[in-house]
Amino acid sequence: MAEAATHNGLAAFGEGRQRVLIEHVTPQVDAGHYPIKRVVGDLVTVEADIFADGHDVLAAVLRVRGPADQSWHEMPMTLLGNDHWRGVFSVETIGTYTYTLVAWIDRFATWEHQLHKRVEAGQEVQVDLLIGAALVDEAAAHAPDPVAATLHGFAAALRAGDAEAAFTPELARLMSLHLPRQFATAFERELHVTVDRPLARFSAWYELFPRSAALEPGKHGTFMDVIARLPYVAELGFDILYLPPIHPIGRQFRKGKNNSVTALPGEPGSPWAIGGPEGGHKAIHPELGTLEDFHELVAAARSYGLELALDIAFQCSPDHPYVREHPEWFRARPDGTIQYAENPPKKYQDIYPFDFETSDWQGLWYELKSVFEYWIAQGVTVFRVDNPHTKSFRFWEWCIGSLKRDHPELIFLSEAFTRPRVTYNLAKLGFTQSYTYFTWRTQRWELAEYLLELTQTEIKDYFGPNFWPNTPDILTPQFYPGHRSVFLTRVAMAATMMASWGMYGPVYELMQHVPAQGREEYLNNEKYEIRHWDLDDPNSLRTFIARLNQIRKTNLPLQRNANVRVHPVDRNFALNEQLFAYSKTTDNATHIILVVVNLDPEQVQSGWVQVPVDEWHLGATYLAHDLLRNERYVWQGEYNYVSLDPATMPVHIFRLERQEELPR
Amino acid sequence: MAEAATHNGLAAFGEGRQRVLIEHVTPQVDAGHYPIKRVVGDLVTVEADIFADGHDVLAAVLRVRGPADQSWHEMPMTLLGNDHWRGVFSVETIGTYTYTLVAWIDRFATWEHQLHKRVEAGQEVQVDLLIGAALVDEAAAHAPDPVAATLHGFAAALRAGDAEAAFTPELARLMSLHLPRQFATAFERELHVTVDRPLARFSAWYELFPRSAALEPGKHGTFMDVIARLPYVAELGFDILYLPPIHPIGRQFRKGKNNSVTALPGEPGSPWAIGGPEGGHKAIHPELGTLEDFHELVAAARSYGLELALDIAFQCSPDHPYVREHPEWFRARPDGTIQYAENPPKKYQDIYPFDFETSDWQGLWYELKSVFEYWIAQGVTVFRVDNPHTKSFRFWEWCIGSLKRDHPELIFLSEAFTRPRVTYNLAKLGFTQSYTYFTWRTQRWELAEYLLELTQTEIKDYFGPNFWPNTPDILTPQFYPGHRSVFLTRVAMAATMMASWGMYGPVYELMQHVPAQGREEYLNNEKYEIRHWDLDDPNSLRTFIARLNQIRKTNLPLQRNANVRVHPVDRNFALNEQLFAYSKTTDNATHIILVVVNLDPEQVQSGWVQVPVDEWHLGATYLAHDLLRNERYVWQGEYNYVSLDPATMPVHIFRLERQEELPR
Repeated sequence: MAEAATHNGLAAFGEGRQRVLIEHVTPQVDAGHYPIKRVVGDLVTVEADIFADGHDVLAAVLRVRGPADQSWHEMPMTLLGNDHWRGVFSVETIGTYTYTLVAWIDRFATWEHQLHKRVEAGQEVQVDLLIGAALVDEAAAHAPDPVAATLHGFAAALRAGDAEAAFTPELARLMSLHLPRQFATAFERELHVTVDRPLARFSAWYELFPRSAALEPGKHGTFMDVIARLPYVAELGFDILYLPPIHPIGRQFRKGKNNSVTALPGEPGSPWAIGGPEGGHKAIHPELGTLEDFHELVAAARSYGLELALDIAFQCSPDHPYVREHPEWFRARPDGTIQYAENPPKKYQDIYPFDFETSDWQGLWYELKSVFEYWIAQGVTVFRVDNPHTKSFRFWEWCIGSLKRDHPELIFLSEAFTRPRVTYNLAKLGFTQSYTYFTWRTQRWELAEYLLELTQTEIKDYFGPNFWPNTPDILTPQFYPGHRSVFLTRVAMAATMMASWGMYGPVYELMQHVPAQGREEYLNNEKYEIRHWDLDDPNSLRTFIARLNQIRKTNLPLQRNANVRVHPVDRNFALNEQLFAYSKTTDNATHIILVVVNLDPEQVQSGWVQVPVDEWHLGATYLAHDLLRNERYVWQGEYNYVSLDPATMPVHIFRLERQEELPR
Repeated sequence: MAEAATHNGLAAFGEGRQRVLIEHVTPQVDAGHYPIKRVVGDLVTVEADIFADGHDVLAAVLRVRGPADQSWHEMPMTLLGNDHWRGVFSVETIGTYTYTLVAWIDRFATWEHQLHKRVEAGQEVQVDLLIGAALVDEAAAHAPDPVAATLHGFAAALRAGDAEAAFTPELARLMSLHLPRQFATAFERELHVTVDRPLARFSAWYELFPRSAALEPGKHGTFMDVIARLPYVAELGFDILYLPPIHPIGRQFRKGKNNSVTALPGEPGSPWAIGGPEGGHKAIHPELGTLEDFHELVAAARSYGLELALDIAFQCSPDHPYVREHPEWFRARPDGTIQYAENPPKKYQDIYPFDFETSDWQGLWYELKSVFEYWIAQGVTVFRVDNPHTKSFRFWEWCIGSLKRDHPELIFLSEAFTRPRVTYNLAKLGFTQSYTYFTWRTQRWELAEYLLELTQTEIKDYFGPNFWPNTPDILTPQFYPGHRSVFLTRVAMAATMMASWGMYGPVYELMQHVPAQGREEYLNNEKYEIRHWDLDDPNSLRTFIARLNQIRKTNLPLQRNANVRVHPVDRNFALNEQLFAYSKTTDNATHIILVVVNLDPEQVQSGWVQVPVDEWHLGATYLAHDLLRNERYVWQGEYNYVSLDPATMPVHIFRLERQEELPR
């Protein structure tokens, strides 16, 4: 309840003459508790209900402060009608922008508006002109000398009975600049925008295991082998090369092939069992190379237009130095042992989780943050964070907030495959991008619903979806039969539905599809062993994937999220549930991408896709240019026939082009 | 942005080990800035998203403090699924309730849950039992002696290896009472509920002009005449008798009959031109009677079950004592005159508005509040406030807030016929009830839409609609032809759609319908002259109105708002737009009211009204009991035929009754 209702007296009330209210300000996340997210070049459109008692004319401005600004910039707001106002600002620098609103009674505009009606009605206005002259004099008293003289001139004209002088545009302009904003209302909160670089929204990730990157089968891959692999990854068109943890791997309770409980001698263990005698989260697994090699890899990747993403998994093997140096950061059991990770009745004795309820939580937080800082100092700007939802929320808010204040270029990808509230909350707390449920959305209706949830509900202002068809942890059942069509449609949807996507290779392009017994996971998973891949396999999807990434880069609509829209495809006057069509366009539909996917891996599917020709100003006849096959179809009207054969190519990615664009 | 993101250091961070988050708490008005409203006996259902990192079991409580409570009461919250929780409390006392939420990791439940899974899997649990025993000992240390002993017994059993002891309901109960809530998260805001008496929601208002209440034509009515009129108003079934301003009326610029610019000698003027030589807002117009007479009227009304509502119009005639005593409360014009009310080019020279931007705004606020206090001291508990939207919002928030703190029984009706944002905002600021746009909603679709807006959107938590078919200021065009049917349907809808309604009589029951030239207002309006009414006119609607109020009192569903629902009425397989059907039921449909209205004043309209028989558990055959005509129809199934003739009775008010209820 506001101050007002809790005090009978007025002594502590503040300025009771503020008459303007500002309400329902959007965008806002949880009443301004968390920032919204944007990338440089974006517009932020702020709307609010702004009104006062009575019928006076109001004025309102957006106040905006960029990361380097010492003071506010003001942008005018416009009344859209029904007391609803809008203002827009653009964000041009990475870092945190702050915005708020100020509104007040526009005394001059109110006076001018009423004078106009009096003059129209032929009323005597002498006294009204005197009232106006006093306002003009008040503005003059707050204006620099030459302007003050101009204003005094206007005041004199009004006093002399010149009503027309009141309606001079120049006077209105000067009055809006210099008349004090009496009893102005400032919106009660300052709101924040986390502004990231474009890669935060538009990015293609490729994950590979460095230890499987050796040219020679059976050999442990190194950073140098990864450097040799860079041309391949760049040719596929990716932006970010993501490596699983590169740290020393634990010895005690090391897992063997296919997650067997005991490793045989010589088995490499899981890179997520972090820490050994050689060091912990700030050390490099010796078989991968040295810190100098790592620096070389970072630089080489950059020369191919790739940024390196490291995997930050805050957990320790029993051999991690932290276990010895900071036993207080782990939970002790009554028998003197350290509590290993569990999901009863399952036990993960190779992993010790940190105890975020430790009495030395501050020491733990500083140390964990210093892990990021260490790798930032080595040139890393992108982090994929393993299971952030099993670590304290408040830690992430503080850690990412502090790191981004010093390094606003950082990108954090949250790997939280958990309940929606938790997944979305991590994005509020600061994670730039997040893995999603896309991997499990396979039916038309659930894909459509999910796209709607991600792009049309309040989460769109803070949640950065990243669509992955697979990960080392996830091989979903639709892949088990090994249909090439499924591999094509899933990767095409991931790459064109959302501006950010990623895949785990070379497993994916080589269409690995055999699951481990009883789990949605790969057999002979690289998590537990070194593999060797034939990148030149003639069945590889590499050229298809390269084409997808190239289409993304040359078609602006695919670089945004909020513009996605689902279209029905009918067959025999009913929805064909096997054909999923969706579009993405630039504003005003100057550039239109329409994707049609056959979700049925076995049958040809056909139907009539509905195109909003009028809304998109396509005219009677237009061209559907399939960017995948570089084929052009002449389409007419609202419904056009499509047919997709899973045996050949189950996806259309059309650019719809107007007639006048045809010859080019 | 939260504290966390703005500090690199942890010194000022607070407790970093709070792991639980509380979000999306409902109900809340503008992030808790304003209270929600309820009446005594209501339940407040609070929901929230509550979750933590990881997979621990959580516990949450609602904390509630009533108007007289010194400390919090706690109500458990229940997990509904998907991290969404619900708790309920009831409000039993008028005044302000405060509620908030607290949630924490339930360490014992987490341990018990995991132990259960381990035992099921046949695992060794000796160490786990020791962990549990330590928790039980911790609880014992915080429990009173006898309980501590019981808990120590449980701890001993666990230490002795008795896993079954862990699952004793008694242990769970004691642990939930005594184990400290470690690192609990309190919701960041305290939220408020304004709890009013039932009359605040369920009320029927009757407005009359005391000066027209004399038995003898041409005589100025008095409070004594109003006392003589009380049996009539009570017989009609009203709860509140509302009088236009009763204060001395200004002389200068007094308005004559039909709002003519100059009054003839002897014309009484408008009661809203408040203040004369006899006094202002705390004085009584001498022709109405004395303060003693007024006290008698208050007491007599109460003896008939009626409360008196006064009209508070904060404006002054040029003769008001404030004009002389406090010229600083009005706006001065450069020619030395006081600024009268205007809506250019219209001038209202008989009215001076207060200047809420006066430098003595505090003096003005105190004085205006003292007007309410004066009449409260005379026994008035209900106020109708004239044009509150032309007075400062902050004044209302302070004034109503302060008054209700001392007098929580007060009811304030806002007469703000203005834009929706402003109308709704006055309700947030404290007005109990509000006039609505009902008066102008005449089509089926717009009535349906308006009912939805009032009862299903966020405004339902703070806006108290009061439906009026007419007022002294409003005679809408549907009445002009004088159709009895329109008078019947409009008053029936006002009385049954919303729990609060009101009408301006005897004008309404006597079906006055001739408008003043060019305005939606009555000809020969009582605002400007004394009228005389023949209450015994055989065409009077008095018995119909009495029947409506009686139906309201004996049918609980009509005493709430949120339960209204619109039903289609079909004719020839299309919606009959002339028949409007809506229902109100108690929870679980134990009591069902179904109203059908013929909106067409000239033609018989018929159709098939759709009844959700399954949802309402009505069975194959049920009774539709028309409470207006006391006629019973046997209905079958989902669609039943209705036919309404405007020439006889254009409204059905059915109570739908189950077969087993039939013989009664």
